[in-house]
Amino acid sequence: MSSKARVVIVGAGFAGLYAAKALKKAPVTVLMIDQHNYHTFQPLLYQVATAGLEAGEIAHQVRATFQKQKNFYFRQGIVIRVDWQERAVMLEDGAAIPFDYLILAAGAIYHDFGIPGVRQNGFFLKTLSEAVNLRSHILKQFERADADPSLLEKGILNFVIVGGGPTGVEMAGALVELFDLVLPKDFPHLDLSKAKVILLEMQDHLLAPYSETSRKYAQKILERRGVEVRLGTTVARVGPHELELKSGEIIPTETLIWAAGIRAHPLVNALGVELANGYRINVNDDLSIPEYNQAFVAGDMAGASDKSGRLYPQVAQVAIQQGKHAAKQILKLIGGEKTTAFHYFDKGLMAIIGRNAGVAELSKRLLGLRFRGFLGWLSWLFIHLIYLVGYQNRVQVFIDWAYNYFSYDRHARLITQMRPSPGELVNKTGKLATEASPTESNNTKVTF
Amino acid sequence: MSSKARVVIVGAGFAGLYAAKALKKAPVTVLMIDQHNYHTFQPLLYQVATAGLEAGEIAHQVRATFQKQKNFYFRQGIVIRVDWQERAVMLEDGAAIPFDYLILAAGAIYHDFGIPGVRQNGFFLKTLSEAVNLRSHILKQFERADADPSLLEKGILNFVIVGGGPTGVEMAGALVELFDLVLPKDFPHLDLSKAKVILLEMQDHLLAPYSETSRKYAQKILERRGVEVRLGTTVARVGPHELELKSGEIIPTETLIWAAGIRAHPLVNALGVELANGYRINVNDDLSIPEYNQAFVAGDMAGASDKSGRLYPQVAQVAIQQGKHAAKQILKLIGGEKTTAFHYFDKGLMAIIGRNAGVAELSKRLLGLRFRGFLGWLSWLFIHLIYLVGYQNRVQVFIDWAYNYFSYDRHARLITQMRPSPGELVNKTGKLATEASPTESNNTKVTF
Repeated sequence: MSSKARVVIVGAGFAGLYAAKALKKAPVTVLMIDQHNYHTFQPLLYQVATAGLEAGEIAHQVRATFQKQKNFYFRQGIVIRVDWQERAVMLEDGAAIPFDYLILAAGAIYHDFGIPGVRQNGFFLKTLSEAVNLRSHILKQFERADADPSLLEKGILNFVIVGGGPTGVEMAGALVELFDLVLPKDFPHLDLSKAKVILLEMQDHLLAPYSETSRKYAQKILERRGVEVRLGTTVARVGPHELELKSGEIIPTETLIWAAGIRAHPLVNALGVELANGYRINVNDDLSIPEYNQAFVAGDMAGASDKSGRLYPQVAQVAIQQGKHAAKQILKLIGGEKTTAFHYFDKGLMAIIGRNAGVAELSKRLLGLRFRGFLGWLSWLFIHLIYLVGYQNRVQVFIDWAYNYFSYDRHARLITQMRPSPGELVNKTGKLATEASPTESNNTKVTF
Repeated sequence: MSSKARVVIVGAGFAGLYAAKALKKAPVTVLMIDQHNYHTFQPLLYQVATAGLEAGEIAHQVRATFQKQKNFYFRQGIVIRVDWQERAVMLEDGAAIPFDYLILAAGAIYHDFGIPGVRQNGFFLKTLSEAVNLRSHILKQFERADADPSLLEKGILNFVIVGGGPTGVEMAGALVELFDLVLPKDFPHLDLSKAKVILLEMQDHLLAPYSETSRKYAQKILERRGVEVRLGTTVARVGPHELELKSGEIIPTETLIWAAGIRAHPLVNALGVELANGYRINVNDDLSIPEYNQAFVAGDMAGASDKSGRLYPQVAQVAIQQGKHAAKQILKLIGGEKTTAFHYFDKGLMAIIGRNAGVAELSKRLLGLRFRGFLGWLSWLFIHLIYLVGYQNRVQVFIDWAYNYFSYDRHARLITQMRPSPGELVNKTGKLATEASPTESNNTKVTF
C-alpha cells in the first residue's frame, strides 16, 4: 500500500514500544507484531501477583498507545521464525510479513538453569497470566487451609521465592505484607502465624548489583518483617509438594516462585543467528545483527555489552534506550548515513522492599544520590507511575496505591484463572510453537 | 465450635449476600458457600463484555464484604447436592457441611429452550469468565478482520444478540457504541461499516415488561444508532459460522450472544424437590421448601409467585428482598414465632439503551414516575453505583464511567481469556459436576 520503507517490530515490550514511538514522524511504515494486543508493564507484575493491583491496570492495548501515530500498523500474532532470504517474518498462522528493516524485541522468559522440576512446578513473573494465576494460587492456598487446617502441618502456607535480586526482594516484601496486614482480616479463624515467606539466594547477599549498605538494609527490613532470608542456598530439585536444597534439606511447599534468572525468548533459537550468554543475540555495537545489517535487536534479547565487555542488564531502562537507538539507526541507514554505537545512559538502580522501605542508587552522572527507606520507596513509586503506559492506568494505579497504603487493604483478591495465550506456552515448555502447517487463512504474503 | 444454630447459605449472589447481612447481629453462625471467592455484580456483566469496565471492578471478594461480621464463615466450594436426612450440604471435594437452617440461592444459568447449537456456539452473560471471554472474542474478531479483510465478506463482524429484554437491549446499545465511537480509532485501516449488530426478538416488541412508550423508544434509539432490530424472529439452529432462523434464512455470524432467557441453576435437579416453571424450586409463601421447612430458597432459584400466581421476575431486587426475607424467617423459627409470607416491593423497571438514553419506570408505590432519555440514563447509572458491592469498586466504576463518557473511549480492551472455574462448566454442559469420588482431603464432616 505504501512505497515507504517497511519497519517490522517484533514485540510490544519497552524496547518495541519506544522504537515505534521514535519512528512517529519518520517516512516509514511501522508494523508491530505481538502475541497479545497489549503491552505488559512487567516491573509491576509482582504487585498483581500479591493482590495490590488489577491485571488491567498494568497492561495497555497497543492500538490505543498508537492511535495518533499515522504510520503505525499492528498485527496480533505469534512469530515463529524469520525468512532472511525473503526478508519476511513468519507467523504461526502461516502469514509472511515482509520487512525492509527489522527490530527484534521479544523479551525474555525465566531461566531454570536445568534444575529439575522448576519448569513443571514453578511460578514465574513475566506475563500477565502468570501473575494472575500466581495470585489465585496464593489466595487459594489460604482458602484450602481455612477449610482444612490439618493442611497447615503439610506446609501449605510455605511460600518460597528463589532469587534475591530486585524481583525476589520485591515479591518477598509484598507477600509478607499481604499475610500480615491484609489476610488476617479475611481469615479471622485461621492461624496465620503458620504462613511463611522464605527467600533463597545462592550468593551470600541480596540485591547483587547494589551497594553493601543497600544489600544489608534490604535484608534487615525483610527479616524484621518476618521473611526468612537464607543466603548461600541452592535449589537442587523441585517437586509439586516440596523442594530439595543442594544440602539435601527438604522444604515442604506448593508455591515456588522463581525469580532466579531469565533468558532471552526462545525465538532466538529459531533465527539461525549467533548467540551470546543467556541465549541473547550477538549484536554489533550499533545493535544490528552481524549477519543481517538491516535487522536490529533491542531489550532483553540483545547481547550488547558495555566497554568492559559485560552484557547490559535485562532491565526496562536498557530496553527503552535500545529501542530508541535501533529506530534511529534505521533512519540513518535510510538516509545513507553511518550508524553509531549504542551507549547506555545508566540512571541507577531502584528497588522497593515494602511499605515505606525502598532503595534508590542514582548513577554518578545523576550525582550519585542515594535514598533509603521512605524516600527510596516514594521515588520508586513516582518513577514507576511515570513510566506506566496509558493515562488511565496511571490514574487507577495511583488511586489503588493510595487506597492500599492508607487502608492497609489490597483490593484485587479475586481467585480467577487466566488462560495463557498459545504463544505463552513457550514459558511452560521452553519451546517455540511448532511451525504451523498451512491453514485455511494461510496468506502467502501480507502487504501493509 | 459453636452451639449456636448453623445457617448455611449456598451462593454469594444478591440473595445470599443480603441474607447473610440480615443475620449480622443474630445469635447464629453463618456459613456461605460459593464456587468463587467473590460476588459478581451481574447487571454490569454486559459492560465488561463491551470493554467499558474491567472484570475486577464488578466483582468483590466475599470475605472482604463480611470482614466486620463476626458470625460469618466462608467456604469456597462446589455444592453437588443436599443430604436432607443428615441435614448437610455436600461439596464436590467430598466435604459435608452440616446445617440447622439452609438458604439456597445459587442463581440461574442461560436457558436454551432446546434450540440446537446454542450451548456449543453461544456466548452467555451470567459469569465473569463468560463476560471476559466474550469481550476477547469480540475484539479478536476485529483483529482477524484487520489482518485479513477478506473475512469481512464471510460476516466475521456480524454480532447477533438473541433476546430483546433488558440484557439484550443493553448489550446491543453498548456494542454498537463500541463499534461507532471507540474501535474506529483503533482500526483506522479497516472498513468498520461492515460491523453490524443484529438484535433478534421473538415477540413483536422489545422490553416486554415495559410500557408501550418505553418499548418504542428503545427500538427507535437502537435503530437510529445502527442496530438492526428484527422482531417476530425465532432462531431454529446455531452453527459455528452461522445461524438459521425459523424462516429458513441464514445469517452468517461467529458471535451469537444469548440473552433470550435463563433457568434456575441445575443444582435444583439434584435436590429431590418439586420444581416449578423454569426449573425453579417450588416454595411455600414464606419461601421455605414444602418438604423441608428449615430450608429456604431465595433469588433466581425460588419459584415464588405473586398474588395472581405469576412467578416473580429473576432480577436483583427480588433476590435482595427474598434473601432478607429468608434470613428473617429463620430468626422467627429460632424464636419460636410463625413465619410470614414474602411480598415483593416492586420499585419499578430500569434499562439503559446507550449513551444518554435510558428508560426508568417507577412503580405506582413510588408515584409511578417515568423518565426517558438522559434522565433515565442518569438514574440507571446512579442506582447501579449504589448497589454495586465494595467501596473501591464504586469509586473505580464511577471514574471509568466518567472517563468513558467524556473521552468517547473504553479502557478495558485487552484480549485475555479467563478460565471458567470447574463449577462454571455447568454453564456449558447444563449438567452439574458429577459427584466426586472421595479424595485425599475428604472430610467426613466439617464443623464451624
